[in-house]
Amino acid sequence: LNKNENHLFRESFLQLHPTDQAEYCINLEKEQRQTLYHMLDPEEMANVFQALDLHEQKDIILELDQPYASEMVTHLYTDDAADLLSQLNKSEAHALLKAMDLEDANDVYELMAYPPKTAGALMTKEFISLASSHNAQQAIEQLREEAPNAETIYYLYVVNEREQLVGVVSLRDLLTAQSNEVIQNLMSSRVVSVDSVTKQEEVAKIIKKYNFLAAPVVSSDGTLLGIVTVDDVIDVLEDEATEDLGEFTAARGATDIHVSAFTAAKLRSPWIVLLMFFGLLTAGVIEQFEETLNQIILLAAFIPLLMGSAGNAGTQSLAVVVRGLALGTLEKKGLLRTLFKEFCTGMMIGFICAMTLLLIIPIFYGSFMVAVVVGISIFCSLSVATIVGATVPLIIHKLKIDPAFASGPFITTVNDILGLLIYFTIATSLLHYL
Amino acid sequence: LNKNENHLFRESFLQLHPTDQAEYCINLEKEQRQTLYHMLDPEEMANVFQALDLHEQKDIILELDQPYASEMVTHLYTDDAADLLSQLNKSEAHALLKAMDLEDANDVYELMAYPPKTAGALMTKEFISLASSHNAQQAIEQLREEAPNAETIYYLYVVNEREQLVGVVSLRDLLTAQSNEVIQNLMSSRVVSVDSVTKQEEVAKIIKKYNFLAAPVVSSDGTLLGIVTVDDVIDVLEDEATEDLGEFTAARGATDIHVSAFTAAKLRSPWIVLLMFFGLLTAGVIEQFEETLNQIILLAAFIPLLMGSAGNAGTQSLAVVVRGLALGTLEKKGLLRTLFKEFCTGMMIGFICAMTLLLIIPIFYGSFMVAVVVGISIFCSLSVATIVGATVPLIIHKLKIDPAFASGPFITTVNDILGLLIYFTIATSLLHYL
Repeated sequence: LNKNENHLFRESFLQLHPTDQAEYCINLEKEQRQTLYHMLDPEEMANVFQALDLHEQKDIILELDQPYASEMVTHLYTDDAADLLSQLNKSEAHALLKAMDLEDANDVYELMAYPPKTAGALMTKEFISLASSHNAQQAIEQLREEAPNAETIYYLYVVNEREQLVGVVSLRDLLTAQSNEVIQNLMSSRVVSVDSVTKQEEVAKIIKKYNFLAAPVVSSDGTLLGIVTVDDVIDVLEDEATEDLGEFTAARGATDIHVSAFTAAKLRSPWIVLLMFFGLLTAGVIEQFEETLNQIILLAAFIPLLMGSAGNAGTQSLAVVVRGLALGTLEKKGLLRTLFKEFCTGMMIGFICAMTLLLIIPIFYGSFMVAVVVGISIFCSLSVATIVGATVPLIIHKLKIDPAFASGPFITTVNDILGLLIYFTIATSLLHYL
Repeated sequence: LNKNENHLFRESFLQLHPTDQAEYCINLEKEQRQTLYHMLDPEEMANVFQALDLHEQKDIILELDQPYASEMVTHLYTDDAADLLSQLNKSEAHALLKAMDLEDANDVYELMAYPPKTAGALMTKEFISLASSHNAQQAIEQLREEAPNAETIYYLYVVNEREQLVGVVSLRDLLTAQSNEVIQNLMSSRVVSVDSVTKQEEVAKIIKKYNFLAAPVVSSDGTLLGIVTVDDVIDVLEDEATEDLGEFTAARGATDIHVSAFTAAKLRSPWIVLLMFFGLLTAGVIEQFEETLNQIILLAAFIPLLMGSAGNAGTQSLAVVVRGLALGTLEKKGLLRTLFKEFCTGMMIGFICAMTLLLIIPIFYGSFMVAVVVGISIFCSLSVATIVGATVPLIIHKLKIDPAFASGPFITTVNDILGLLIYFTIATSLLHYL
């Protein structure tokens, strides 16, 4: 590439959206990326960098030489800088912090000190705060100056002389106001804010509930510390949703694809072993009925079918209730009504299954009486399974635990035990007809 | 309430955030709500109304008298009005549309014509479009006028004389620009837009990827039709995530809490019955080994334990892969490496379980040889289960189906059958030692 081509490339590269620049950058060979770094100044590189995933950022930062890297980090939003430095080892992070401007370094250091997954850890320091005594014209001028460095300029927070949050003005209201109108009269003093230690799910819920583009974060004495923007919240919601999947499947905290097989086994085996101990209970139940089983060995063949069906019906009810809780539609319907509805649904599905089996088992396994036992059992256990599936998440929710938490396997295990008890009790009591 | 108190109440009610106004309104008794309607004009009521859930809106609109309701609907954003009218029966919707101003009614009618869950159905018509020949000053003046009726004023779309989208300017850029700068030079002409028939998940992905506050929706010839805002996208993401839970648990399309028990049974029973037929296969497998089982009846006691463990290990792997696919982290890691890692994880967890059972079964059930059979089986079936759990969603994903789709129960069923085959094969071959 000669100098002229370089220039042309640079121009068209910078016209891309940062997200596309980042995608382009990460797909280059390592050597080509070095050329790109030489072409862009640290501020331009910061824009590209901000659009990368945290894992990619970690790789890239180690490719940059120290002074360039430090200057680039200075140009990152403080929340992005803090997230990045938390990923590096202590000496690397320290070296970068030391080379940064003191004020910026302090901001980043402050954010790194908040517990992970709280509003404090999620927020950025690049917000615009106004004085309530200024007028609209003055505020717009301040905005023009500070806009290039703020993460959002669409919500402007009003603070008093002690830096405490006292109000909020949207840029929309500011623009449509008379230029001599005082901020005090323009602002809404009922500001919804979150505490720095508020959990990130709570922050996401508030931003979602009020359709905010950002929410202010305050300390316990009301000092405005930073803001959380809606794009960060979308990432939180996505993250929580896929984490829920992990909790749902007893893989809590172990769904990260980046860990080694050994770490994965360490994180996941406790759940499997714990649930296996519950499985030993089912073995105990079956052993109690060894006598019955010894007389009709065919009964054993339908254990998996019964357990599987009860498990599936139970997790369906679970999904309905967890969804209702997540969307907030459940509380309004009434819990007892929901339980009764699930019970009715379970009976209907159980009835359909029972009828099907009464037809099929005699044909393929030649025993009408076993079909009767399996049929009655599946009807009873599916009715019970839907109640268990709906009740367990409600109880867990009442205990203020995430209702998706490991409830799938737990419900299946409870339903296994109940289903087996129903099955063998019915079989034993009908034994002299079999 | 006398007139003065009424006035005071009105003042303080209007100071609340619309979300809080809506919450207050929905918690009132029906008669009290009538008083509220008399106190607010239709435009103020539209603000409250917009913050209600669709189900709540449907109840409230039927409480209002016709002329008030029509005027209120006129003040709703077109997307909210279209969503609402789609929920009402034809004659109710028609009556409201007829009483509306013709232009508004046409906009609403247009939105109602788009297929559900597309960009067209999600978008609103209240956007601000600029002419590229105007300068910054003129644009800001236009903004001041149109702001009260626009859903967002933070992204301004530039159109040509044929109403085709040619660029975008953020309010931030507009504010910091010189007042005589022409829009043509300020705007970015690389606009990311979506087609009106784009699926809502796709729209959500794009807004999330680029951290947009809104995305423009265009027709096939590039005409700007409307915008989708980030708050609508958050609802879509939340909805998709909880729907995934339903798919994961074979309750696809049946997790709505508002349906009757009969409808729920109709929607959910096909899955249970289908999976029950797979369960009949497991019964067939066990029957094949009736001879073995007849000799050692204790083997039956550990069927649920084995199946449960394999099922749990399989869905853990499933959760890891589905999450990796959803977050886009998986493709970058390489599929074969992921499968191999899951296999190793499965072997390690299987080894831990096997060792535990070798210790416990002899103590509680008195048979060391059964413990050996169960131990070897759990080691093998957990190793296989993780591979099945990781492979199935990858295959489903390659077939362009949502990988969460009913994969949980399906994987569990496959693992049940494989686990039982492993168990009885090992038991049969070790039979003369037992």
